Amino acid sequence: MKNSFGNSMAVTLFGESHGPYTGVVLDGLAPGIRVDGAFIGKQLELRRPWGRISTSRVEADEYQIVSGVFGGFTTGTPLCILIPNRESSSGDYDVLSHTARPGHADYTAQCKYHGFQDYRGGGHFSGRLTAALVAAGAVVIPALKEKGILIGSHLKSCAGVQDDSFACEPGELARQIGEVNGKKFAVLNAEAGAAMQAEIEKASEEGDSTGGVIETAVTGLPAGLGEPWFDSIESLLSHALFSIPSVKGVQFGAGFDLADGRGSSFNDAFRVRDGRIVTETNNNGGINGGITNGMPVVFRCAVKPTASIFRNQKTVDFKVCEDTELALTGRHDPAIIHRARVVVDSVTALVIYDILSGRFGTDFFSGRK
Amino acid sequence: MKNSFGNSMAVTLFGESHGPYTGVVLDGLAPGIRVDGAFIGKQLELRRPWGRISTSRVEADEYQIVSGVFGGFTTGTPLCILIPNRESSSGDYDVLSHTARPGHADYTAQCKYHGFQDYRGGGHFSGRLTAALVAAGAVVIPALKEKGILIGSHLKSCAGVQDDSFACEPGELARQIGEVNGKKFAVLNAEAGAAMQAEIEKASEEGDSTGGVIETAVTGLPAGLGEPWFDSIESLLSHALFSIPSVKGVQFGAGFDLADGRGSSFNDAFRVRDGRIVTETNNNGGINGGITNGMPVVFRCAVKPTASIFRNQKTVDFKVCEDTELALTGRHDPAIIHRARVVVDSVTALVIYDILSGRFGTDFFSGRK
Amino acid sequence: MKNSFGNSMAVTLFGESHGPYTGVVLDGLAPGIRVDGAFIGKQLELRRPWGRISTSRVEADEYQIVSGVFGGFTTGTPLCILIPNRESSSGDYDVLSHTARPGHADYTAQCKYHGFQDYRGGGHFSGRLTAALVAAGAVVIPALKEKGILIGSHLKSCAGVQDDSFACEPGELARQIGEVNGKKFAVLNAEAGAAMQAEIEKASEEGDSTGGVIETAVTGLPAGLGEPWFDSIESLLSHALFSIPSVKGVQFGAGFDLADGRGSSFNDAFRVRDGRIVTETNNNGGINGGITNGMPVVFRCAVKPTASIFRNQKTVDFKVCEDTELALTGRHDPAIIHRARVVVDSVTALVIYDILSGRFGTDFFSGRK
Amino acid sequence: MKNSFGNSMAVTLFGESHGPYTGVVLDGLAPGIRVDGAFIGKQLELRRPWGRISTSRVEADEYQIVSGVFGGFTTGTPLCILIPNRESSSGDYDVLSHTARPGHADYTAQCKYHGFQDYRGGGHFSGRLTAALVAAGAVVIPALKEKGILIGSHLKSCAGVQDDSFACEPGELARQIGEVNGKKFAVLNAEAGAAMQAEIEKASEEGDSTGGVIETAVTGLPAGLGEPWFDSIESLLSHALFSIPSVKGVQFGAGFDLADGRGSSFNDAFRVRDGRIVTETNNNGGINGGITNGMPVVFRCAVKPTASIFRNQKTVDFKVCEDTELALTGRHDPAIIHRARVVVDSVTALVIYDILSGRFGTDFFSGRK
Repeated sequence: MKNSFGNSMAVTLFGESHGPYTGVVLDGLAPGIRVDGAFIGKQLELRRPWGRISTSRVEADEYQIVSGVFGGFTTGTPLCILIPNRESSSGDYDVLSHTARPGHADYTAQCKYHGFQDYRGGGHFSGRLTAALVAAGAVVIPALKEKGILIGSHLKSCAGVQDDSFACEPGELARQIGEVNGKKFAVLNAEAGAAMQAEIEKASEEGDSTGGVIETAVTGLPAGLGEPWFDSIESLLSHALFSIPSVKGVQFGAGFDLADGRGSSFNDAFRVRDGRIVTETNNNGGINGGITNGMPVVFRCAVKPTASIFRNQKTVDFKVCEDTELALTGRHDPAIIHRARVVVDSVTALVIYDILSGRFGTDFFSGRK
Repeated sequence: MKNSFGNSMAVTLFGESHGPYTGVVLDGLAPGIRVDGAFIGKQLELRRPWGRISTSRVEADEYQIVSGVFGGFTTGTPLCILIPNRESSSGDYDVLSHTARPGHADYTAQCKYHGFQDYRGGGHFSGRLTAALVAAGAVVIPALKEKGILIGSHLKSCAGVQDDSFACEPGELARQIGEVNGKKFAVLNAEAGAAMQAEIEKASEEGDSTGGVIETAVTGLPAGLGEPWFDSIESLLSHALFSIPSVKGVQFGAGFDLADGRGSSFNDAFRVRDGRIVTETNNNGGINGGITNGMPVVFRCAVKPTASIFRNQKTVDFKVCEDTELALTGRHDPAIIHRARVVVDSVTALVIYDILSGRFGTDFFSGRK
Repeated sequence: MKNSFGNSMAVTLFGESHGPYTGVVLDGLAPGIRVDGAFIGKQLELRRPWGRISTSRVEADEYQIVSGVFGGFTTGTPLCILIPNRESSSGDYDVLSHTARPGHADYTAQCKYHGFQDYRGGGHFSGRLTAALVAAGAVVIPALKEKGILIGSHLKSCAGVQDDSFACEPGELARQIGEVNGKKFAVLNAEAGAAMQAEIEKASEEGDSTGGVIETAVTGLPAGLGEPWFDSIESLLSHALFSIPSVKGVQFGAGFDLADGRGSSFNDAFRVRDGRIVTETNNNGGINGGITNGMPVVFRCAVKPTASIFRNQKTVDFKVCEDTELALTGRHDPAIIHRARVVVDSVTALVIYDILSGRFGTDFFSGRK
Repeated sequence: MKNSFGNSMAVTLFGESHGPYTGVVLDGLAPGIRVDGAFIGKQLELRRPWGRISTSRVEADEYQIVSGVFGGFTTGTPLCILIPNRESSSGDYDVLSHTARPGHADYTAQCKYHGFQDYRGGGHFSGRLTAALVAAGAVVIPALKEKGILIGSHLKSCAGVQDDSFACEPGELARQIGEVNGKKFAVLNAEAGAAMQAEIEKASEEGDSTGGVIETAVTGLPAGLGEPWFDSIESLLSHALFSIPSVKGVQFGAGFDLADGRGSSFNDAFRVRDGRIVTETNNNGGINGGITNGMPVVFRCAVKPTASIFRNQKTVDFKVCEDTELALTGRHDPAIIHRARVVVDSVTALVIYDILSGRFGTDFFSGRK
């Protein structure tokens, strides 16, 4: 496979930043899932640029479901979503046919596609394609919710400012997920959020950009999901998460903090609480041996600062193989992390849907008539 | 798939800690790769426990290649390696049929396999199976080397002690890789290495365990490998790396350090040097937009402290669903990171082999007669 | 996977007979393939209904390539083709929400999709979707031709009338392929063709339908393609061919005729001719042990008579589980075999493209700039 | 993939005719399937050569399950079966390193593996590997039986002699399946069986070989299995069946006989019988639109005459690219169809197991404790 993931339910992404449409095909959905157009719209709204902390290219993100839905429910056959591109201004980008923006894929696309790539606006590498992923995620998130599975993310850090952490206790965590899912700028601590936005604006004024860390939690998963070796929960999630542009690190539970500690501090003790087996702490992020243990699955993604900055940068003209300089113009995000968080949620939802379909069968999410 | 990875060359792992054999099948190898038995033995030696910093269960790690090799060369048909288990002492483990070791997969295996799992010594989850992975990696590492591709890892940190970092400059990095690949305890800074070993011994004496961070570099890869979305280089590597027991985080280039910085500091400027396009820094770990850029691919794995410790731990009896306590006896590693580094190298080699076979065809590594 | 095939180049099909679009995504195409719009149009024309031997629902088969092509060449990123449905008349089909047309998928769709299927015009099972397959095939057929690979089919039999067989000799066979590819009704023997059309018209007048056998040849393939066991050439081709509606049998070379003969009559003797190794006969259809031997790959597909007939048929109402009768009205083909032949060619081309990409790498078909 | 098939439960085959072991890995089995050693032995016995109608190379077919079984039940982790080769006499085969046996894979293996193939006894292409497939099938056949699913095959024709056909009525068919599964030479009509054996012996005396047609039925499958397009039941079965050596044709239901008939004769009328929906005839082999309709799935495989014959044959020396002649010596089967029938059953069982696991989840076959 190339541009697909998923075993029981496959996600295939297509499109270019300046083509007529980007889109996605979901193949393997259960029949009978109610498709909630308002929710899809709301999720796309969370991804859309806004305010002074985002690009001024604002797409309406109309979307059209052209197959796989009949009478408001999924049919069980491939569901294709199209999202038209309207706001593209290709004139801005001609220099990119031969000049590499540092931190971007212009040069690597040239090496891979030998000059045939659509270089306008990053082409197929563009963050525009995440709109299709968000729409796809919004098809399955309500189906997961019906099974008691909640997914939510917040900005654990941004531009050096720290947010609070998600709670370990599942009930409190579920409350926090509900809270952040309703927020445009997803933080637990409002003061931290204000400070982050101020830092992004400051970077923007300086022609620079910032990154951050997204913390994500999934509650309500049964114990026993995942595979011991190559399809561990960590493997399946990280595979999909690292496909999100700008994600350069993924860690589960205490992650890199585990590395320098002792086993006696980080082993999560099992206990029986209200007749259920739980762990007292969740340093392993709800996963032992690659398999879910019934505690919330918790992970963090490192999102690098947006590569597009308005400063003069040293680079090369890769057609003539010569040093040159590049100063970007046009519309760019000084940060994408606050928009990326809904992409992380969507990709996570698609992976979890796929895992549950494989484990419990393709009818697991089916609304039987 | 469950216990396999790879598209053009698939790796399938099988076996249990206390079964007659563990093993691996490599399906999709090129014909005509010289199989170097001495090198396989040397790599298994690097994984084998030694000294006071490892378990006293020392397996001979004899291995037998039972298919796919003829006259000393791969045939191109599936290559199966068997590794017999001899040193197993199943009597130590009966309690594990109903008691969960904290941090281990005993409870999650019960949830997934409904009590049918081979619970002896961790069964299929056992680190024993990494011996087969190391043998498999040792089949392809020389083939990669013939194409100019080198892979090496060192302990970037262990038990709180930091090693130096790999050099950014490819030539110096290649020298460092050669150096660490020959070392039993792979560090760049010998003093740091001695301090790490002292810390492991100290933990061991206290019945405790330690973890660390492994830094890995791959040099000599052509630019243009990987896919823009779901089969990005980060996706493919992390998928396989997270299948290694105890790995809880993976980051590429500056990874989580990127998150709190500015784009102006972390964008890697492109330059022409000796007619080749390179970057001045390598904060993106040799990968832009999921595709290799010709610089070394560099990443770090967080390895959690060994879950087996000799202290009394709170846990549950999952058969009767009651709280209990557990004090491990038997033979356990106070650290596995110094042994895990060759597992990381092997898994990396298998992933890289698969990617190159897909890109350049199944004959790419073939020794044509 | 569900609605996809291909390892190196994946084909994903979507859409319903009465939805806004059907379409296809090709993921894994090489960059730099010239996309020939006129040829795509010509191939779609061969599939389009015509004359008294086809349905009177004639779609314009406009198509739109919405991704993966830039400046007239493939980019190497997923190529999505949309084909709008305009001629649908949904009113004809309401009875199918609860009544099974014999020989059709109405009842099995109900069992699989629990009543959520789009039952209008066969929904996702409709032959309409083969237009997208034909368009997809038309993207890769010219790329195969540039490598010296030709694909062609003719109606070996139809309604009991036999056509001549393809020649064994590769040069003559190539000439025949060129000939049949230009024909609307693809036969080698014009008299046989006229008789077939007369039989189809006769069946049509009687409210009945006919089937036939399509013979297909692929010339110019190198020896050594395919895998010894589960990805044999026969396996890969039959997998895709059996997805074409109405195909109920596939045989290679002498096929079922081999079964009752002797080894001494059917073993194809190898000979050296003009410095190349060939076989004197081609009873094995160019394949030994699942691998191409350099001779033309030749196979036959049994196409059952069109299931839609205008006679009263016994069937069931599957909602109330009662016997009933059904007399179809509307527009239906008395035969589809003359239209199906270009679908067989297209599917064959996609499979061959995939096999060659896997063997020789994803750049094999690339037009390097 | 190369040497694997299956999505939810993958089958990977390895080994060579003259290597130490052939074997198979089943990855994705449910936990808790009782493994019946006596049944595995009985199935291997059906495949083993016997009498004057088979080769005199008779392997004991001892087998060893080295992973994935604990206490007599599957664990749910990969199950590896090894079958040792003992009766190999490599001296017979040296000429095959440069001479192609007509109808065999010697030349195509040379083209694919560039001379690195293990040419002894057909190497990896050898029918010996079907012993591992039979053992694998024997693990899942009892699990299918527990779900009410029966599989059986008989020799519909052999050496020009016809057997009766399987009954259409499911009850009678189940009885016939039970009958042929207990027979060493599987025919419905004992006289036909005697005539077939006489014909095989006659061919053998003449240094020649024969083939035939195997008819297979699967009863007890629920309606609604399979996918509308590329993973149709026909696609999945034919993919696996064409991997069996000597199979050159596969047809479902009336197959090629459908081609020359009329829709009015071949559409299977639906009826309600005892509250269940059935068809009056089964010309579509239990499959409509690629999906099971609840009737028995019935198909036929064409098995070509054994390629190994004792007559002088024209061929080439492919190392020096010259015409030569070849007269085989050694031990060869004058027919393999009576032994192949259990291979067809086994492969069918593995495919059906995989389909049911995908549809109903990986625990579908699990024996919950």
